[in-house]
Amino acid sequence: SSTDEVDFELAEEFIRLFHAENPEAGPVLPRLRWVRAEIQATGSYRHTTAELTFGAQVAWRNSARCIGRLYWRSLRVRDLRAVRDADRVAAHCRRHLRLAANGGRIRPVMSVFAPDEPGRPAPRIWNDQLIRYAGYERDGGVLGDRRYLGFTRTALDLGWQPPEQPGMFDALPLIVETEQEGPTLHPLWREDVFEVPLSHPELDWFGSLGLRWHAVPAISNMRLVIGGVSYPAAPFNGWYLGTEIGARNLVDRDRYDLSELVGERMGLDRSSEQTLWRDRAVIEINRAVLHSFTEAGVSIADHHTESERFLTHVAREEKAGRSCPADWSWIVPPISGALTPVFHRYYDTEPLRPEFVLDDDAAH
Amino acid sequence: SSTDEVDFELAEEFIRLFHAENPEAGPVLPRLRWVRAEIQATGSYRHTTAELTFGAQVAWRNSARCIGRLYWRSLRVRDLRAVRDADRVAAHCRRHLRLAANGGRIRPVMSVFAPDEPGRPAPRIWNDQLIRYAGYERDGGVLGDRRYLGFTRTALDLGWQPPEQPGMFDALPLIVETEQEGPTLHPLWREDVFEVPLSHPELDWFGSLGLRWHAVPAISNMRLVIGGVSYPAAPFNGWYLGTEIGARNLVDRDRYDLSELVGERMGLDRSSEQTLWRDRAVIEINRAVLHSFTEAGVSIADHHTESERFLTHVAREEKAGRSCPADWSWIVPPISGALTPVFHRYYDTEPLRPEFVLDDDAAH
Ligand code: HEM
Ligand code: HEM
Repeated sequence: SSTDEVDFELAEEFIRLFHAENPEAGPVLPRLRWVRAEIQATGSYRHTTAELTFGAQVAWRNSARCIGRLYWRSLRVRDLRAVRDADRVAAHCRRHLRLAANGGRIRPVMSVFAPDEPGRPAPRIWNDQLIRYAGYERDGGVLGDRRYLGFTRTALDLGWQPPEQPGMFDALPLIVETEQEGPTLHPLWREDVFEVPLSHPELDWFGSLGLRWHAVPAISNMRLVIGGVSYPAAPFNGWYLGTEIGARNLVDRDRYDLSELVGERMGLDRSSEQTLWRDRAVIEINRAVLHSFTEAGVSIADHHTESERFLTHVAREEKAGRSCPADWSWIVPPISGALTPVFHRYYDTEPLRPEFVLDDDAAH
Repeated sequence: SSTDEVDFELAEEFIRLFHAENPEAGPVLPRLRWVRAEIQATGSYRHTTAELTFGAQVAWRNSARCIGRLYWRSLRVRDLRAVRDADRVAAHCRRHLRLAANGGRIRPVMSVFAPDEPGRPAPRIWNDQLIRYAGYERDGGVLGDRRYLGFTRTALDLGWQPPEQPGMFDALPLIVETEQEGPTLHPLWREDVFEVPLSHPELDWFGSLGLRWHAVPAISNMRLVIGGVSYPAAPFNGWYLGTEIGARNLVDRDRYDLSELVGERMGLDRSSEQTLWRDRAVIEINRAVLHSFTEAGVSIADHHTESERFLTHVAREEKAGRSCPADWSWIVPPISGALTPVFHRYYDTEPLRPEFVLDDDAAH
């Protein structure tokens, strides 16, 4: 488990990689001797800030499911390893959201909190992303995000006060767990949640559906593992790929499931699947997303452009003599797959370290 | 190689499967003794017609890339193992096309020609499908199907006479190779190629683009392998899934590459990918395909319906206690992936026999 003693071989592999790619860090052997002695004495070792930053960036570079990796070197890493108590973790997550949103010019940011140490588990964030919307059961149906019905219930059980008028897009509170405090609730403030109301470039009624989405997708339930050391609380964000919102969050049957409503409002013939009304409705939802974010001055990528950029990344990695692991089924966008160049090729699949790991936490 | 002696273990595996699923075939041991003796005497063995039919159907059932497998039991198998000379192979392929087209009510059919035998290679069909359209170089561009430029050149070298006015949709001749005759040309006749002219339910100008497509997709370059015996010439067909034509054949950049033209005719704003003009154009091409086939009374499936049917098939196979190998990246349709239920799950991937095998033939 991640609170066991660190395996020196994993540490060595990473330290050698760091020194190979960062010659200015000097000779590797003295550092390796130091790390070995530290592990022998304490069961773990502390990364330098340069190692931590590089490790986080390379974990992004190695994320086989991520199409946005062209920018891996630009990741800002916040070294928050001294932060262990729930209130300060939550406050720094809220600050992360504001730094990342940056008034619309989204910046890729990662906040690295205390690592697991032998016998001393680190803080954990229960939310899968820092911003998610609540889901409420309402006379047979669901108000809000269906997938977060369970998480919403957990938050309510812990004492969360939802808005007086619950709505479709109520940001859930953070739930931070520490060894001392157990799980604790930390509501986001309004100014932490940069949002974009959705309208459509041509369909006037679209704006009156009252849809919106937040600007910063910040994954908070993946463990960052660098050289054998686990950082379970290390939320990170990029900007959105439009299809994540327009083809999944607003459309999946276990999310907002809006294709039927939009198809109806568009006046499409829904008497048969052959009219492809579903496909047409979803394209228009995606146009609304891209249009609204761009009008609001908020960074967002479309799947055509981001696919081209990803292939530039793969070519650069090849040129640098590195393999670039990629998971086809995640890289190819959820709509219009074959219209993007990423569809028409194979990728390396061998995983590399450092990496992000998704644990199966029973708790949520 | 497939003209070596048959491996008895592979034969046994198949014969046992056949008897297990067909109890009316009687006890398996006498048949196994016979097969062993036949392999010892001749290096191979002859399938009974029942075994051949079952083997072909199960090869379909095991095709991990095929979404159309709900109907695997309905495959008609033509036992043409006595046919070895090129003229008769070609004549039977032409007959196959007419039987399969069936005036529009497409029937899944397979024609099994002579197998490879030790030291005696079977006939081979060079075409990857029985019907493919020629591609011609024309002042810098391509007329017809870009992917078949090479095959068209090969056919011309062998003496093929294209139509006096070469067009976008000229059916290529069959090229059949036998050991005695080498490769020989066999033009398809007009009545072999059931075609549908493409028009759009709303966009009137679409019909005047002069597009059409053939009704029967008949793969002819896959080797059918049953119980260790190889049938290199065993063309088979189902009906089309609309996206094969509307999202790949007419749209891929190395095929007809029509999204730009259709987007332009639709008057879409192509100044940025963010308008999703490409996605919209391709949906309309797909609507035209489904509409035209249906109007012409020709069987075709849409990706929503066929995805549901495929999951019915997977459930049935599970219920029958069988694993159903499936290749996610082929089963999920090339557009609107996440809108179909096949996107949102995992599949068995372990391959099963009997099976279809794609050889890398250097010749084409
Ligand atoms: C800069 C813009 C970025 C874009 C456009 C982008 C895009 C994407 C997309 C579309 C996915 C698939 C999401 C899904 O289907 O659920 C993804 C997954 C992922 N991305 Fe990125 N990403 C960006 C930045 C980042 C950053 C900064 C990191 C880490 C430092 C990262 C790490 C990952 C990981 C680990 C996954 C897999 C998540 C999982 O397994 O659920 N990405 N990314
Ligand atoms: C009855 C209607 C059928 C439908 C709707 C259907 C649908 C499909 C589709 C959409 C593909 C993927 C094609 C591509 O992306 O290139 C496919 C592949 C395949 N199908 Fe089917 N199919 C049908 C019948 C059959 C039959 C009758 C057989 C064999 C007896 C078969 C065997 C296969 C095989 C072997 C592949 C993989 C081809 C390759 O590797 O290139 N299918 N099918």
